[in-house]
Amino acid sequence: MVKDQFVQHIQSLQNKICANLEQIDGKAKFIADKWERPGGGGGTTRVISNGAIFEKGGVNISIVQGELSPMAAQQLKVNGENFFAAGLSLVIHPFNPMVPTVHANWRYFEVYDAKGKVTDAWFGGGTDLTPYYLVEEDVIHFHATQKKCCDAFDKKLFSQFKAQCDSYFSNHHRGGERRGVGGIFFDHCRGNEEYSLDFWKEFTEANGNIFLDGYLPIVENHKNDSFTDANKYWQEIRRGRYVEFNLLHDRGTLFGIKTNGRTESILMSLPPIVRFDYDYQPAAGSEEERLLNLLRQPREWV
Amino acid sequence: MVKDQFVQHIQSLQNKICANLEQIDGKAKFIADKWERPGGGGGTTRVISNGAIFEKGGVNISIVQGELSPMAAQQLKVNGENFFAAGLSLVIHPFNPMVPTVHANWRYFEVYDAKGKVTDAWFGGGTDLTPYYLVEEDVIHFHATQKKCCDAFDKKLFSQFKAQCDSYFSNHHRGGERRGVGGIFFDHCRGNEEYSLDFWKEFTEANGNIFLDGYLPIVENHKNDSFTDANKYWQEIRRGRYVEFNLLHDRGTLFGIKTNGRTESILMSLPPIVRFDYDYQPAAGSEEERLLNLLRQPREWV
Repeated sequence: MVKDQFVQHIQSLQNKICANLEQIDGKAKFIADKWERPGGGGGTTRVISNGAIFEKGGVNISIVQGELSPMAAQQLKVNGENFFAAGLSLVIHPFNPMVPTVHANWRYFEVYDAKGKVTDAWFGGGTDLTPYYLVEEDVIHFHATQKKCCDAFDKKLFSQFKAQCDSYFSNHHRGGERRGVGGIFFDHCRGNEEYSLDFWKEFTEANGNIFLDGYLPIVENHKNDSFTDANKYWQEIRRGRYVEFNLLHDRGTLFGIKTNGRTESILMSLPPIVRFDYDYQPAAGSEEERLLNLLRQPREWV
Repeated sequence: MVKDQFVQHIQSLQNKICANLEQIDGKAKFIADKWERPGGGGGTTRVISNGAIFEKGGVNISIVQGELSPMAAQQLKVNGENFFAAGLSLVIHPFNPMVPTVHANWRYFEVYDAKGKVTDAWFGGGTDLTPYYLVEEDVIHFHATQKKCCDAFDKKLFSQFKAQCDSYFSNHHRGGERRGVGGIFFDHCRGNEEYSLDFWKEFTEANGNIFLDGYLPIVENHKNDSFTDANKYWQEIRRGRYVEFNLLHDRGTLFGIKTNGRTESILMSLPPIVRFDYDYQPAAGSEEERLLNLLRQPREWV
């Protein structure tokens, strides 16, 4: 069954990602919090903090089911009596401002009618990179890794999912300034005449499996970079924008909060130390301004 | 006219509050940003930062009018063609964790039909205190000041507005943990058989006029208190909850963001430096835990 296979996949992917991040960090270990959902199911939140590289990060899985509340049905724009949802969600905030933050999520939903028949099922997910300083080779590498993964399934997918990522991770209240330099974002991927549900399962799993290939080389490249207090200050300012996006706009976060999800697991995504200055503007011609200009006008990288 | 009188009031109140806060701070001065709203009207954002006492604060007025957008009408739950809104909004974040954060807002709305006739008009506002360490005399003083102000108008008002404040400033996603120790909150105060619109104007103005009486003595009492790194850490954790409330739940913030308000003026309310730890728990029996317990179970102070 699609459902059981995907659950096995995210469980082993969580282990693999945590093990690799621990290895590169070399100092901190992930702790695990297993939790149960009162309405059915539960999850394992794995959190790393104060590492040599990773200041705060979470790699969480949740496998939940139960009654579809009116609020959840409204948020998901579906009708049904019951639901099943499984997903892996991760956000990694490095200490060194030269190492980008990364986010990824892969998820599967099923909706059932009163008789328990599956009436709807879809996959969603993606990954996106949030650098504090722009190193073009890194962004090209990250996007190329995503493109290669997409192209193996259908050459049409990457450009569509890349555009959706730029469009989704946008701080609309800041004139469409993007949260980062993007990646891919896909959602509501249902089985249809063109692609089967199994196609999307394979795709979503493959995208999870190549996550480390996209991110780890960038960490490796910059983990020993030197930085100044001013670089750290800028990182904290940019982290403020990350908080704004997640709490004001992110559908996953708002869905979790509105449907009484586990708050600590949902808000694990927030950066560890954040700065909100009034009307902060980077100096003209600076590296900080160069990044900001790019976030306002996303580029095609590959 | 109610409208013109209230505009004059908030203009002079802004000057008075800024002058008094500058005086007690003794180091930093407010800067002023005047801005215009593309659809009509504008405001003056006044911001203080890196003071001897006040790490970040804003005392803003806005006086705006124009077409009532469908989004604004939906948010306000009103019908009409045009609107007028005037308000003063302030948030003060002291550096010393022994000095509480304070917030206040006083506002007036008018809605017009296609012929320009006023079809709806109401006042709203209030003030609330967010300490990081609980000093009961301070909270009693703050609430007593509010009660005295309310009682001069009608003895019924305080308990109602105090309860509304506790109910409004609640982080629902954290089991109803309150943002602070409350104060008063009132909204949709229209003229009716019991109270005239003029009654509410007088009340709202009076509440603005006693704001400093409630807050300044508390600042004076604690501005020279010593504190540890651990106290500062706790302040930064609690500031995280302030951010969560403002971005996830605060109607004023979400209204501003959704109706394309001036982002920097709206988000001036966010604390300067904030910490988000995974599942932070204060030590059993600590002062930090004592505060948290109170935030979960608000008390009657006067």
